[in-house]
Amino acid sequence: MKNPSLYAAIDLGSNSFHMLVVHEVEGACRILAKVKRKVRLAAGLQPDGSLDEAAMERGWDCLRLFAEQLQDVPADQVRIVGTATLRLATNIDRFIGRAEAILGHSIRIISGEEEAATIYQGVAWTSSGTGRRLVIDIGGASTELVIGEGTSAELLHSLHMGCVTWLKRHFPDGELSEAHFEQAIAAAQHELSPVAAGYLTQGWQHCIGASGTVQAIQEIMMAQGENEQITLAKLHRLKAQAIACGRVEQLQLPGLTPERAPVFASGLAILIALFDTLAIEHMVLAGGALREGLIYGMLGTRQECDAQDRTIDSLIARYQLDREQGERVRNTALQALKQLQPDTDSDAARMLARAAMLYELGLCIEYKRAPEHAAYIIRHIDLPGFTAPQKGLLAALLLNQRDDFQLEALQAQCALDGERAVLLARLLRLAIILCLRRTRGTVPAFALQRDGNRLILTLPAGWSTGHHLRASELFAEARRQSALGWQLDIVEA
Amino acid sequence: MKNPSLYAAIDLGSNSFHMLVVHEVEGACRILAKVKRKVRLAAGLQPDGSLDEAAMERGWDCLRLFAEQLQDVPADQVRIVGTATLRLATNIDRFIGRAEAILGHSIRIISGEEEAATIYQGVAWTSSGTGRRLVIDIGGASTELVIGEGTSAELLHSLHMGCVTWLKRHFPDGELSEAHFEQAIAAAQHELSPVAAGYLTQGWQHCIGASGTVQAIQEIMMAQGENEQITLAKLHRLKAQAIACGRVEQLQLPGLTPERAPVFASGLAILIALFDTLAIEHMVLAGGALREGLIYGMLGTRQECDAQDRTIDSLIARYQLDREQGERVRNTALQALKQLQPDTDSDAARMLARAAMLYELGLCIEYKRAPEHAAYIIRHIDLPGFTAPQKGLLAALLLNQRDDFQLEALQAQCALDGERAVLLARLLRLAIILCLRRTRGTVPAFALQRDGNRLILTLPAGWSTGHHLRASELFAEARRQSALGWQLDIVEA
Repeated sequence: MKNPSLYAAIDLGSNSFHMLVVHEVEGACRILAKVKRKVRLAAGLQPDGSLDEAAMERGWDCLRLFAEQLQDVPADQVRIVGTATLRLATNIDRFIGRAEAILGHSIRIISGEEEAATIYQGVAWTSSGTGRRLVIDIGGASTELVIGEGTSAELLHSLHMGCVTWLKRHFPDGELSEAHFEQAIAAAQHELSPVAAGYLTQGWQHCIGASGTVQAIQEIMMAQGENEQITLAKLHRLKAQAIACGRVEQLQLPGLTPERAPVFASGLAILIALFDTLAIEHMVLAGGALREGLIYGMLGTRQECDAQDRTIDSLIARYQLDREQGERVRNTALQALKQLQPDTDSDAARMLARAAMLYELGLCIEYKRAPEHAAYIIRHIDLPGFTAPQKGLLAALLLNQRDDFQLEALQAQCALDGERAVLLARLLRLAIILCLRRTRGTVPAFALQRDGNRLILTLPAGWSTGHHLRASELFAEARRQSALGWQLDIVEA
Repeated sequence: MKNPSLYAAIDLGSNSFHMLVVHEVEGACRILAKVKRKVRLAAGLQPDGSLDEAAMERGWDCLRLFAEQLQDVPADQVRIVGTATLRLATNIDRFIGRAEAILGHSIRIISGEEEAATIYQGVAWTSSGTGRRLVIDIGGASTELVIGEGTSAELLHSLHMGCVTWLKRHFPDGELSEAHFEQAIAAAQHELSPVAAGYLTQGWQHCIGASGTVQAIQEIMMAQGENEQITLAKLHRLKAQAIACGRVEQLQLPGLTPERAPVFASGLAILIALFDTLAIEHMVLAGGALREGLIYGMLGTRQECDAQDRTIDSLIARYQLDREQGERVRNTALQALKQLQPDTDSDAARMLARAAMLYELGLCIEYKRAPEHAAYIIRHIDLPGFTAPQKGLLAALLLNQRDDFQLEALQAQCALDGERAVLLARLLRLAIILCLRRTRGTVPAFALQRDGNRLILTLPAGWSTGHHLRASELFAEARRQSALGWQLDIVEA
């Protein structure tokens, strides 16, 4: 008896084994279960290239857990892949034979290139933006590098270095010294040297990092009150903080989980080498990688369009939003923005458009505090294609869609400068009022001008006497904005 | 050009005019707009029975606002009713003629009995529970009383007293004295005396109050840290607090809005008379009344089943929950409860069943903090058929469905005593683990016994060695519960 709606992806990594069980809801992937165990398989690689018995046992124990849930997933909706350690181990047949018997499914040991390509698909699915991307995934025993554009990977490599193997090799005594770091970084640079020129020649517009190392670094930076962009300067500061802790087993940094701590320094060293060799300016964390690539490959959902568009479409379906009304508010808001700045093909314009499409999201909970509910949902929801700062901006705009302004949210977001974010909020609010009738042909022609912080909204002659509710709302809105020092004049032509 | 998905209800009340615009989503009513103005029409009733010009102008101004939005709603999806003041005013034709011209829709002045019947439908739609209900709605110039069961009103009256007329008549100088209160209460008792015997003879199991007066009292009680049950003792305390403020225009109580303050004392006096004359023990606030009765009458959605069932069904559809999995967890949890106490037809059992059906609600946001998201949604969502304490219990159970216990939520809810709520949470968690495979025929036979706080879960012989994931989760759960002093033993037969 299988459950035909389930899909599962299992990744037998060198550091952890992961199982992800999902089903599909309106073109989005809803996670039903995540099981993860730190098997640290790579630590069992012996000098002779074999995997030791203890590591195999840890792996099989974990697979017995996975097996129970896996038996309910239809066979063609399961993908199980083994990566670097399983590629390297000389006695792999013994491990795989028993593992497949436990799982009742076959395991594919994928090549480094296939791993890189699948990671790229997972990143492409969950990231947005145009232009070439450099994707980096630091695993337990390998590091994948890919340059691609849209859904096509163009250049890819898998290198024999990872946070578990580098720990064993370069921090063997557990001492977090400058010398050990230098050695680990130099060794990583050496691994990179044969391929670096190809990446530097190709070039990229965005750099995206996947895997636990990059996630841990982002979490530490957030805990230290920094933004989510990873830079070489920040990595060097983290290195100095790690050295100050003295030893691997004493490593404690705010935001660093005890599980990640042992392999943090080695992963950090590899990342520093990557930033240095490839002259990376900044990196953001990916929303998905290998497991997501496996899952999205099975779901076979459309990949041609932009990830942000696809996410917005899915939210409209999942939360039963009124698409026509969202489009009306979006068009009105963009028309307003265009009158202030002719170039509407900007990040700001795109975010204003997204916010307009989703402005009624909170109504799925209730009317009175709907703006708060919309912001809550956006702050917490999986939003493939949106970066964390973009989510923060969207949430702040939705929170500020009506009633009193909540300026802290607009100031706390870091996708746009505060003044620009306030302008977007002001335009969104005006568009919502102008579209209040929810019906085609009811939005008046209008002109919007700007003079510093002052906005002048010009409506057709006599409009307000024929449209009492919107006029009343616009005048109330003018009072609200003006009270905050952003004069809003409502005039008639 | 109309928008065929819109419905509107307008209530031209003696205190306020309200407009509600909604559309239907999966059998639930989603509010798109609420517009309300304190027109205080009843204050314009002259000694000769006519409505003065100023009150009419206030009314027409408000209708001009409503009219703008109303023109987009299909005519047969609009209901506009006038109540007590419009029933009483002798020069009503003048007001209505102009009002209909402004609105472009006809207005029905409904009789007191029709008002009472519609209020009852709004309450029936949004309330749950079996047995006869007494419904009381204190308006600006009339008070409706109904006894009914299910969707049938059995006994109904509309009395000529309301919070606006009683203010004018019994607190004419604005003084909040004991004498004025006594006079207002005695006058209300006098109005009640001809009908009281009928209600006392009929009897009821639950008393539900609608309208702004009851809502304001509940909000004040909440602000004072009390539970949501209204009792005569609490009303007398509020009366003493009001008298201590001295005058109507100086009335300030935590939780009382400035808008409601002027008619608070008069409404309170009427409510005291009702409690006293009808020997009401406690009253809870209705989730809906006149406007909801008008809306639900138009939507024509099924009314035959229990409001809680209907709400759960709507949530399953709106949030794309896996109904079969919810039923599996519900049946398992109820089976566990039944083994501890044979009587599962209790409120506690019903709430456990509801929580089980909704346990995955938070997955619509994201997996990691799904229990928190589920609790957030339940705490804030409109939940027709559930009382505020029931919502609190549901939210607490959903929050405690996995991971570490969050005891504050279980202790803060007031639907059940804390010990019983903890037991429900423990059973829900066990049921979720036992149903982890999401597939028919995978839940083991089990026996559950209780010895004080200790639970003993007996599984089939050898079960744990064949079911590693669930066994591992059950043992982890046993450690979690035992650490809090609730021993949980997992044994095999």
